[in-house]
Parts: sequence; C-alpha cells; structure tokens
Amino acid sequence: MQQKKMTLKGLAQILGVHPSTVGRVMDPETRHMVGEEVAQRVLKEAAKHGYRPNKIAAALRTRRSNLVGVMLPDITNPVFPPIVLGIEDELRKQGYLALVTNAGENPEQQRFVVDQLLARQVDAIILATATRDDPIISHCLQEQVALVTVNRSEDVSRVSSVVNDEFAGMRLAVGHLLTLGHSQIVHLVGPQNLSTGYLRREGFVAAMAAQGVAASELRMVECASYTREAGMAACCEALARYPDTTAILAGNDLLALGCYDALAEMGKRCPDDVSVIGHNDMPFVDMVNPALTTVRISHHAMGVQAAQLILRRLQQEDMGQMEIRLKPELVVRGSTAPR
Amino acid sequence: MQQKKMTLKGLAQILGVHPSTVGRVMDPETRHMVGEEVAQRVLKEAAKHGYRPNKIAAALRTRRSNLVGVMLPDITNPVFPPIVLGIEDELRKQGYLALVTNAGENPEQQRFVVDQLLARQVDAIILATATRDDPIISHCLQEQVALVTVNRSEDVSRVSSVVNDEFAGMRLAVGHLLTLGHSQIVHLVGPQNLSTGYLRREGFVAAMAAQGVAASELRMVECASYTREAGMAACCEALARYPDTTAILAGNDLLALGCYDALAEMGKRCPDDVSVIGHNDMPFVDMVNPALTTVRISHHAMGVQAAQLILRRLQQEDMGQMEIRLKPELVVRGSTAPR
Repeated sequence: MQQKKMTLKGLAQILGVHPSTVGRVMDPETRHMVGEEVAQRVLKEAAKHGYRPNKIAAALRTRRSNLVGVMLPDITNPVFPPIVLGIEDELRKQGYLALVTNAGENPEQQRFVVDQLLARQVDAIILATATRDDPIISHCLQEQVALVTVNRSEDVSRVSSVVNDEFAGMRLAVGHLLTLGHSQIVHLVGPQNLSTGYLRREGFVAAMAAQGVAASELRMVECASYTREAGMAACCEALARYPDTTAILAGNDLLALGCYDALAEMGKRCPDDVSVIGHNDMPFVDMVNPALTTVRISHHAMGVQAAQLILRRLQQEDMGQMEIRLKPELVVRGSTAPR
Repeated sequence: MQQKKMTLKGLAQILGVHPSTVGRVMDPETRHMVGEEVAQRVLKEAAKHGYRPNKIAAALRTRRSNLVGVMLPDITNPVFPPIVLGIEDELRKQGYLALVTNAGENPEQQRFVVDQLLARQVDAIILATATRDDPIISHCLQEQVALVTVNRSEDVSRVSSVVNDEFAGMRLAVGHLLTLGHSQIVHLVGPQNLSTGYLRREGFVAAMAAQGVAASELRMVECASYTREAGMAACCEALARYPDTTAILAGNDLLALGCYDALAEMGKRCPDDVSVIGHNDMPFVDMVNPALTTVRISHHAMGVQAAQLILRRLQQEDMGQMEIRLKPELVVRGSTAPR
C-alpha cells in the first residue's frame, strides 16, 4: 500500500511557512528569492517526506515543463545517438530534460509525435528530422513552440539551425580523391528532400567545377534513403552505368557501407579496384574492412550547440534566427588509395 | 500572432452538443459511446478549427497520459536502438507513445530521470537500465507505476522482464570454441552488477564444467563497463596473465571490438593467433575486420515483448510477474578459426 503523498500545503504547515515559500524553494529558478537558511530547512523537510512537486500541475500553472522534445528520423542510424548525447549534456546543466522520440521520416507520423509532445507542453523542440521545406516546422511555428533544427535545415531557414558545412566537407572529399589521381568519380547522392543530401550534391558540383569539370560530365546516382541497402543498390547501378569508375563518393557512411556490400558481391576489391569515401565518421567505421575514409562531422558538438541555442531562446534572449555551421575534417583510412 | 485556441466548450457550442460528447469523441477509447454520425461531425469540426484536447489537463483528470517512459543506460551502445524500435512498433499499435531518456548508469542520475518521468505521469516505465538489485526498481514499485525490465533483470525479480537466455548463449559460444579445438579460453566478464554480465559468467562456468573443466582452471578477466575501451584493457590483461590463450569469449560485442584494438596493438592476428567471439550481434559487426562471430540476441523481439507485457499490465490483466527468455543463436563469421 502506498502512503498518502505529502502535498505542498502539508509541507508548509509542518514548517510553519507560507505555501508560496515552499513553491519558490522547490523551483531552482526562484530559490534565490528565499533566504538560504529557510531554503535549506524546506529542502531537508521535503526530502524527509519524499515530497515531489507535481510537475504536471505546475506546468498547467506556469506553462513551463523544463522538458525539451527531441525528434529523430531514425534511431538506428548511428549518427543520431552522439547528437542526443550532446543535447543532453548541455540541457542537464540547466535543469532541463530531453525527451527523445523516434518519429521516422513520414510527415504524418511526425505530426502525430509533435502533437503528443506539444500536448505535454514541452518548452521547446529540437528537430533532427527537418526536410528542406518542412510542414512540421510550419506547424511548430504556428504553435509558437521554441524550435531549433540540428544536422538538417530548411532552404529558407525560418528557424535557427546547427549543421555541418556541407560544401567544405565535399571540397575535402573531392580534393582527396583528385589528389589520389581519380577522375572517374561517382557521387552517390543522398535524399534530395533533405538539406544534407541536397547540399552535398551541390557541394560536389561546385568542387568538381572548381577543378574544371563541366556539369554535363558529372556522374551521380540518387539514393532513395540513407541506408546500407540503398547504398548497395546505388553502387550496383553506378558501376553498371559507368564501368570505368575508380572512386565512389558516398553521401553518407551507411551508403558507403552499402558500397562495400555491392563491391563484395561483384567480386571487386576496395580500394584496389574502387576507392570509397563516406560522410559522417559514424561510430565503428574505423573497424570495418577496409577502415572507411570519410568526412568527419562533429555530431556531439552539433547537439551541444543546438541545446545552447534553444536554452538561450527559452531565456528570452532576442537573438534572431541564425545558422551555425560546424567545420568538418577529412579522416583518411584504408578505403581510398591512389588510382 | 497566434489565433485564439479553440476549446472543448467552444467546439461543443458550435456543434450544439454537450461538452462531454466532444470529450468522448476526442478520446479513442470512449468514441464508441457516441453515435457514428455525431462522432464524424465532431471530428470534422475539430479538424476544421485545429482543436486538440489538452492532454495535460486530461492527464490530471483521468490520471492517464498514454505515455510510456523508456530508460536507456547508454544510447550510443548499438544494442539499444533496436530494442527501442521494437517497443515503439508495439506501443504505436495501441496509441501509446514512447518517451526515451538516456539515463546513464549512475543511480542518482537515473533516480532524477525517473522522477521527471513520474512527475509527467507516464503510465508505465520500461527499464533497460536494471541492475541485479536495483534501487530504481524499489522506487518505482513504491510509486506504483507499471514496470517491466528489458535486456537486464534483477536476481530476485520483483517485476516482469524480457531477457536473453544467457546460459543458452554461453553454451553456444563455448561449444563453438571447443569444437574448433580451443581449450585455452579466456572469458572477458561484463559488469557483475548487471544480470547480463553475471549470468554470462555463470553460464561460462556451467558450460565449461559440463566439459569437465574445473572451476579453479577457468580463465576470466573482469571488465568495468561494456565499452570498447574496457574490452581493450581487459584483452591486454588477459594475454599478459595467460600468454598461451588461443580464444577470447567476450561478454558483449563492444568488448570483442576492444579485443580487436588490443590484438592489433600487440601485433597479433585474429583469428590466426587468437579467435574472438562476442555477444549481441549488434549492427555492423558483420562488416568489421574480421567479421565478428557472435551470439545473436533478438533485441527487436525483446522490445516488442516488453511493450506487450506493459500494455497487458495497463489493461489491468492480472497475470502476475513473469520472465520471458528469448533464445539466442550462434552466428559464425571470420573471427573464430580452428586452433
């Protein structure tokens, strides 16, 4: 049997203070309004009785929950856990809790999840699901919830975002392959409704143009999704369409791993026959065979920055919208070799 | 500027029905109490005005939130995302939403996170964080929240759990190594405060005893945590202590990958010098070099079963406590070879 729960009023009665004093002490943001000695007495008595403020009632009253919703498109893609860790590390410092939901890539499902989060009065939402023109963002703006996108952004950014500098990453990747003597390069293009897929494609075109390669000579194969399976299919198509290909520049690491599968199936060796380079440097790609050369994106730092943006926004700092672009770096391993 | 939000009362007024009728229609569980024609009219008008029931107010009133909290010890360990997917797949069918929190292995931090979830009146909690004698479980039981543990369990199980059959897994692993002619086997033991670490150790002792190996002759090295770094350190210690070791049976795949790091550093080859076998078959271990032989644990199925247990519990089914043990299977790849 459960013992009767201690209430704020009951606690105030025991302590001989006004209930509002107890209320102020229990909220870290208003605790400074109460004298140190009284605050300590309240906290001690609260702990003794296992008193816990009813956050739901408090949320109704104050319209603040200290919760930040985090929407992921695919929890099994290893790039997202480090982003979540970065978000949590930063939110925790300020007494906020991240509630993670794996919303998928389907807009209707995402809308359902957002509404669930809003109905629980999350103070803010961090979207890792953003598409280039995102109806979910429209919906969140209409609901006036604090919002930041991470890893992906809109074309016309209506909200602040923390992303990788995709053009810089593509310059690193293309530069590396050209230095190794490759010229027959195929870019496996990520989904074009996502900024990562679109901007990496644009970055590829720009980096190749800077080397004097005409747009009409570029080799690109589109992938329907960021999965190992999509990468395998696209790699097969690329080598069928362009049999003299010597290097594949994959839109992300999962696509690159799919290339490994395809090359193994075709009896081709990486990097002897075909060099492969990815994007992300997701966990464990240093251990695959051969170890993957890739463009390292700072996912943990991205999460930290996104949380900082949202916290500043919640503190009513009027800072306008901004896009923070983190610099990627090239990590050379065994999957790329001189032509 | 935000337009004034439509309320339940306002909607009832427009429709000329009693507010309780609108309330019943908006709750899928009570919708059948209202005539089909009226229900359709209410839903249409609600959609037209963007009306959304205030779930927080509803939760206060009904004490039901349709939320299930999921506590993870380490979101970057690739075994957990498939468990989360399994939980979500099953919860979604019944209109429940999983709120995932990455609570870490620290009990104080876990307690904080549990209290945050309870304060938001989650209907149930699925713990992937359970230790063998878990103060968090005591706390949850005291709070009378529906509870299930997944992947890990307590020694004296006070709550239902869905776990792997660790003894069966260890029999498969030991049997495989013995068949290959290995007898100098070291078991890298996982954390002993976790059922997985403890039962795999017990399973190793039992499986070796069945082959006539005395307990005093067993070779075991403890790992402080389930990480690649801990596996690397333990592998170095194992080979220093037992230089004639020909096979390492790691408590999980992350520890096994740490063995790869250690062997590479020592200039030893896997499997030529030392065979390595893991536990879990987590994503991508088929792609490491050499591809990892491991005991496959059905994490997605585990998540599905855990969600089913908790849903049945929430539907007041009196079924007592139970432990569901899923059968593992051996996946032989390139990291194990004849002695």
